[in-house]
Amino acid sequence: MTDSADAPVPPRSSPVAPPGVPVVGPVVGMVGGGQLARMTSQAATGLGVGFRVLASSAAESAAQVAAGTWLGDYRSLADLRDFAADCDVITFDHEHVPDAHLAALEQDGVRVRPAAAALRFTQDKLAMRERLTGLGVACPRFAPVRAIAEVEEFADGSWPVVLKAVSGGYDGKGVWLCDSAAQATAVLAHGAALAGGFGVIAEEYVPFERELAVLAARSPQGQGAVYPVVQTVQRDGICREVIAPAPGLAPGRAAQAAELALRIAAELGVTGLLAVEMFETPAGLLVNELAMRPHNCGHWTIEGARTSQFEQHLRAVLDLPLGSPVMAAPVAVMANVLGGDDADVYDRYVHVMATDPAIKVHMYGKPVRPGRKIGHVTVIGDREDWRDGVNWGDGGNWGHADPQELADRARRAASYLRWGKEDGE
Amino acid sequence: MTDSADAPVPPRSSPVAPPGVPVVGPVVGMVGGGQLARMTSQAATGLGVGFRVLASSAAESAAQVAAGTWLGDYRSLADLRDFAADCDVITFDHEHVPDAHLAALEQDGVRVRPAAAALRFTQDKLAMRERLTGLGVACPRFAPVRAIAEVEEFADGSWPVVLKAVSGGYDGKGVWLCDSAAQATAVLAHGAALAGGFGVIAEEYVPFERELAVLAARSPQGQGAVYPVVQTVQRDGICREVIAPAPGLAPGRAAQAAELALRIAAELGVTGLLAVEMFETPAGLLVNELAMRPHNCGHWTIEGARTSQFEQHLRAVLDLPLGSPVMAAPVAVMANVLGGDDADVYDRYVHVMATDPAIKVHMYGKPVRPGRKIGHVTVIGDREDWRDGVNWGDGGNWGHADPQELADRARRAASYLRWGKEDGE
Repeated sequence: MTDSADAPVPPRSSPVAPPGVPVVGPVVGMVGGGQLARMTSQAATGLGVGFRVLASSAAESAAQVAAGTWLGDYRSLADLRDFAADCDVITFDHEHVPDAHLAALEQDGVRVRPAAAALRFTQDKLAMRERLTGLGVACPRFAPVRAIAEVEEFADGSWPVVLKAVSGGYDGKGVWLCDSAAQATAVLAHGAALAGGFGVIAEEYVPFERELAVLAARSPQGQGAVYPVVQTVQRDGICREVIAPAPGLAPGRAAQAAELALRIAAELGVTGLLAVEMFETPAGLLVNELAMRPHNCGHWTIEGARTSQFEQHLRAVLDLPLGSPVMAAPVAVMANVLGGDDADVYDRYVHVMATDPAIKVHMYGKPVRPGRKIGHVTVIGDREDWRDGVNWGDGGNWGHADPQELADRARRAASYLRWGKEDGE
Repeated sequence: MTDSADAPVPPRSSPVAPPGVPVVGPVVGMVGGGQLARMTSQAATGLGVGFRVLASSAAESAAQVAAGTWLGDYRSLADLRDFAADCDVITFDHEHVPDAHLAALEQDGVRVRPAAAALRFTQDKLAMRERLTGLGVACPRFAPVRAIAEVEEFADGSWPVVLKAVSGGYDGKGVWLCDSAAQATAVLAHGAALAGGFGVIAEEYVPFERELAVLAARSPQGQGAVYPVVQTVQRDGICREVIAPAPGLAPGRAAQAAELALRIAAELGVTGLLAVEMFETPAGLLVNELAMRPHNCGHWTIEGARTSQFEQHLRAVLDLPLGSPVMAAPVAVMANVLGGDDADVYDRYVHVMATDPAIKVHMYGKPVRPGRKIGHVTVIGDREDWRDGVNWGDGGNWGHADPQELADRARRAASYLRWGKEDGE
């Protein structure tokens, strides 16, 4: 989520720009300068609330655009304290702030939202699995494993088995699909080789029909709001497309997923957003992952919902009344733009805009590296009225928009931005 | 548009923050740090293009939020040159940059968009009237006037007469409705008393049925796009509400207005946005004012159109393919939030969000002064699904949204934000 490798981290945090003038009221500080903070800054500008970012370098995605950027290290309690002193509420664009630092900030009286007690379940997958199981929430079967004998006992002869690092993983990193005990042995050895090692859990491999996600918001006073359930399409462990709402999802199952997200948010005491990633199986829904921040599965809400997830997160952590999560169109599809081999995106960017005037292109200002998320595109079920090279905006009818057609449009644009051609050409 | 009175202007421009890293490609520099630059910065963040603001103080609306803010004086050619050296294209959030400076920048080879030759028609109302009349565009009858005798000759016994400062006016400033020769004499004396005086034109008073506006975009390569014609509601010379599309407008007249805007943009060589404010009369449309920048009549496009006017302006001045101006909903209404007597807006802000979860509140970070535009709200024809305090986002149907009902909602919220009550209570 962060570009800490791009530039040296100064020893102490320091303001890049003079703090802005908070006019509407409170100031939200977001720890982490990635694209989630960047898009949250856009929402803060609209709401008129003060906004600060704690970024690792001035080149980070959010630091490029947000006037209220501090430079500092999220692993340094001193930097976090300096930053918090300039803010009314602290929130996060990633899960990597050490738990002990969060506890220390809370001890200082800083409003940390979500609180350390909730965030813990995004930092420790074993704790999350145990807590959800305790709540009666269906999850894949799991067990902590230290040695290959424990993995083999868990597998009981039935491979593949999924091994996951207990903490620190994202975008497919820290997750290994093991087809054999030999592969599992290599994963455990890899873990032992890292400084300090890492905890690993084994999970059953779920032959799911598809992946779904649901995004809920909860405010400190307990108000809840939930977005429509979406389908997420992953390739190589990275989210590639999100279709809202999930096509053909049985209404009962959609309601079940929405209630599940609201219940988990309430039980875990989440303030802000909660993203719940799920597997849909013939037997029902299994929870895969949790996140407590704006999430890739909700980027479509910028244009596709009445309240974007970024605005909703700000409203929730400020204990403002939540905004309407109703869709702004019948269907919305987002596709992530990954980096390709050619770092200069601009010609392809112009081409995509010329080809599809209604597509929304979002670029994150991140240096292009192969496979890295550098932006996203969103298409909305819409009416169109182009004639003679001019869009007159005067006609057409609202009609049913076909999710697969929209998904093709989004995928084509994202692929073109990456390669200058469609995937598979 | 600018808050130059809020803080001293440094003698030379200087970067507030280190310039961001332009990743997608070119850098747009906007001269002027008001709310139009603030909202343009949000669009630039989304597009991923570089963005700089030349603001008069770090407290200005856009300077509070945009990392790429330079401080400087738009009346200083040296400051403008320093700023332009950091940008690929220069554009504007107001009309007040001296014409000679624009010409000098163009002479330097700076891409000034819109160009000085076009901007001139927003800086000089007499030149605008003469040019439009030359194009056969219907305008109110007008004449330059220096002495009361000329005003009386223009009136020919028929009062009221409108007097307008040839340059420098906005939001009703610089426009006087005179019911008598005595009033006109006072206006002329007022002008003569100002340093250097100012040119004045007389215009016939038009007993219009309503005011309309149309917003077009034109790119350097000549691509055009036009938003639906809107109705604007002014009180005391200040725009209060904008209804999109203009309710009940005859299709032929809407097409006429759209074609008019595109034709004026092409004839005047506009690059970027052109806002055309018009009077609708029984005899047809008369052009009142022109602006060549994002405009108050287009704030509704942030949520109400597929491409916001701010994104469209950036695309146009960068010569990118224009975005679709199609509406994102059947109806959208914007109401300006004016400052009231109580500078602390926050309690009222919370109240409005609680009352109407689907309303979009935009605050500009500007100190509250009575009557000053400090924000706006937008409501969108929409479906709603709140049950038990939770919005399930799962139901409702797209239906016809009544423009007057939406206008009431918007007006009520804007009024509450101003006074803590509805106008007239």
